[in-house]
Amino acid sequence: MAARRSPAPKKKTRKKTSTGRKAPRKSIVRDAREVKRRNEALDKLAVKKIVGAARDVHDHILKRKKPDLEFPVRSLRNVQYSKKQGYFSIGKQKKVRTLTVNTVKGFAQTLRMMGLSKEMIETNDFATKRDAYYQSKNWEDARFDEQSESDSVMDDIEALFSVDGVSREQLRFVPDEHGGAVAGQLLVLDPDRDTGEIERIDCTRFGSGAYSIPSTVEHLSFETDADFVLVIETGGVFQRLQSHKFWQSSNCILVSMAGVPTRATRRFVRKLSDECALPVYAFVDCDPYGISNIYRTLKVGSGNAAHLSQFFCVPQARYLGVTPQDILDYELPTHPLQDVDIKRAKDALKNDPFFREHAEWQKAIRQLLKMGVRAEQQALAKWGLNYVIEEYLPRKLAQTTRFLP
Amino acid sequence: MAARRSPAPKKKTRKKTSTGRKAPRKSIVRDAREVKRRNEALDKLAVKKIVGAARDVHDHILKRKKPDLEFPVRSLRNVQYSKKQGYFSIGKQKKVRTLTVNTVKGFAQTLRMMGLSKEMIETNDFATKRDAYYQSKNWEDARFDEQSESDSVMDDIEALFSVDGVSREQLRFVPDEHGGAVAGQLLVLDPDRDTGEIERIDCTRFGSGAYSIPSTVEHLSFETDADFVLVIETGGVFQRLQSHKFWQSSNCILVSMAGVPTRATRRFVRKLSDECALPVYAFVDCDPYGISNIYRTLKVGSGNAAHLSQFFCVPQARYLGVTPQDILDYELPTHPLQDVDIKRAKDALKNDPFFREHAEWQKAIRQLLKMGVRAEQQALAKWGLNYVIEEYLPRKLAQTTRFLP
Repeated sequence: MAARRSPAPKKKTRKKTSTGRKAPRKSIVRDAREVKRRNEALDKLAVKKIVGAARDVHDHILKRKKPDLEFPVRSLRNVQYSKKQGYFSIGKQKKVRTLTVNTVKGFAQTLRMMGLSKEMIETNDFATKRDAYYQSKNWEDARFDEQSESDSVMDDIEALFSVDGVSREQLRFVPDEHGGAVAGQLLVLDPDRDTGEIERIDCTRFGSGAYSIPSTVEHLSFETDADFVLVIETGGVFQRLQSHKFWQSSNCILVSMAGVPTRATRRFVRKLSDECALPVYAFVDCDPYGISNIYRTLKVGSGNAAHLSQFFCVPQARYLGVTPQDILDYELPTHPLQDVDIKRAKDALKNDPFFREHAEWQKAIRQLLKMGVRAEQQALAKWGLNYVIEEYLPRKLAQTTRFLP
Repeated sequence: MAARRSPAPKKKTRKKTSTGRKAPRKSIVRDAREVKRRNEALDKLAVKKIVGAARDVHDHILKRKKPDLEFPVRSLRNVQYSKKQGYFSIGKQKKVRTLTVNTVKGFAQTLRMMGLSKEMIETNDFATKRDAYYQSKNWEDARFDEQSESDSVMDDIEALFSVDGVSREQLRFVPDEHGGAVAGQLLVLDPDRDTGEIERIDCTRFGSGAYSIPSTVEHLSFETDADFVLVIETGGVFQRLQSHKFWQSSNCILVSMAGVPTRATRRFVRKLSDECALPVYAFVDCDPYGISNIYRTLKVGSGNAAHLSQFFCVPQARYLGVTPQDILDYELPTHPLQDVDIKRAKDALKNDPFFREHAEWQKAIRQLLKMGVRAEQQALAKWGLNYVIEEYLPRKLAQTTRFLP
């Protein structure tokens, strides 16, 4: 399985293992009390915002005025992007829901949902979208008939409080799906929901397995002396790097996205990168889906959910590969671009505020369109199963400044 | 969020916590040497079978006869089920591939693929289907043009050696997707692929996170004093049980399937159940998909992959719920059965060897069809977010003999 006609001579580019390093562990939290204080402050802010919104409604009613709630408009037309801020953010357009005879049910449901959130923050509990829908079956006339209705109310509440920097997860509404898998030079600090005692989870100690990110990560803190986070598109490549302890030789943290990353995965990487000042490198397939749907969503967010970007996007992310140029440099096996790929790439060039801002990306996508092919990250296995570990990644990581933005 | 109109009075059905127990840890392996010996024996068997098949071809050629390879037929027509054996098994029908001018490429590819497997066993490495496809790009005339071709050859090889009790994972071909998440009273023993040193992974120590099952689990061993394994359909319910440490109060191991369980998840549960003699209880949605596609596949396997059942099915599994009767007993919110649900249920009654064998299942499925509705496991949240932990599961677990087979 050795590389037989490998396109470049083998160089000693591997970095020294981390065991010899003595750098201090990066972390913003020192002990259980600090973790607790920080989480309590976040909860307090969320409760304050809920109570504030409710009091406003209450005050209007006492003054015999019609109460209303103002929600940001969630649509592509109400999205802004600037290189400096680094992510899609929601614009200033609002829609107002005023309490009238016609809107009374939706208005009541919104307030009950906010009440549920407050109750969950106070009892340190949480609910998925489905949980919240079924909970409402006990709300008598305010019960939801379909989950799509409760989902929509939840989305509105999320957008409402996102303006104050409070995320859905801080409101204790959590996604139904888990986050991805993590392995490498990282301690995750997770306070027990009852006792507050901190579990220190060492991500170097999972053998061939990995740490599975919980549905919500707001309460987690980190300690690490890693140099970077490597986020990986496919489970197969993650398993290879994990089984061969690539995180040890490269002093990094590996995160498996398994396709488009879930909310929990994106939030986990964002928090980790923010709190430990770590660069994030993305390793995905070289096709318009990997570039646009996976990488772009990870880095700046998506158009129809711009109110989430402030929490979920990872503006620190840079694109390690596979790049269109890699297909040539590494003589990778390819597949022809499908019509849907071509459409997606042209859309990105024409309509996507992120790609429009970055000349390097325009050049790379045009190159891909001209070549008319795509390549998967596992195509590197042509040169040997572990070529990715022994050659490709070390060469790439020696020149991080050349990564696409 | 307390249960307001809960359908039955609260009873003290919770089991004693495990901390008071002094039962010996169940395990079939005692130390690193034993783990190593066991894994080496499995590898030796696999290599022996590969070499045997190759030698047979070689001998035929030396005798100037046409060599051939005999593969079991992979189709529903070639499947057997008996209650006693407990899973779908592959029948006696074979297809023979003889080396001729027309079959030479496929024949050569099959042998190269077997050679790759032998090489990976000897170097303790592994490949996904994609890896194997791309590896072949260096096989000159034996290279595959499409991944569907290499997948098909791999399936044949898997079926070929399954007759000798050797699984695809033992041949070192691993799935591209990870397994599910695990939490609870379990130590996973995972030998390092280079040093053989054993990592002991304590699944009680992951806070709100979990252990993510690796792509292949053949090399793992276990230590546990849990009473049972609870496999859960949705990530949301798993997160609830994990965050509230249900595994502690009920002395069990929680496994999240996140829909139809992956190969790695099924194999993990099967090994765990076999090696530690643990019962497995399934907690899924009450609909024909949960019953037939998720539970039935977990327990006895699926028709078109019967050669896998001996490794991947979990005959020890029993159905905790949600049952059609639970919908009535717990007054659960429901959705109407769709046409596709009704078709799936009628198919199960008429054509599925598993459901045909079990009168209790026929009765339950007929009841569901008569009621014309389905219910999700999260519907229990109607009675309070934690009703599932405080009432439903303890009541169910007090009467495990009543579980559907």
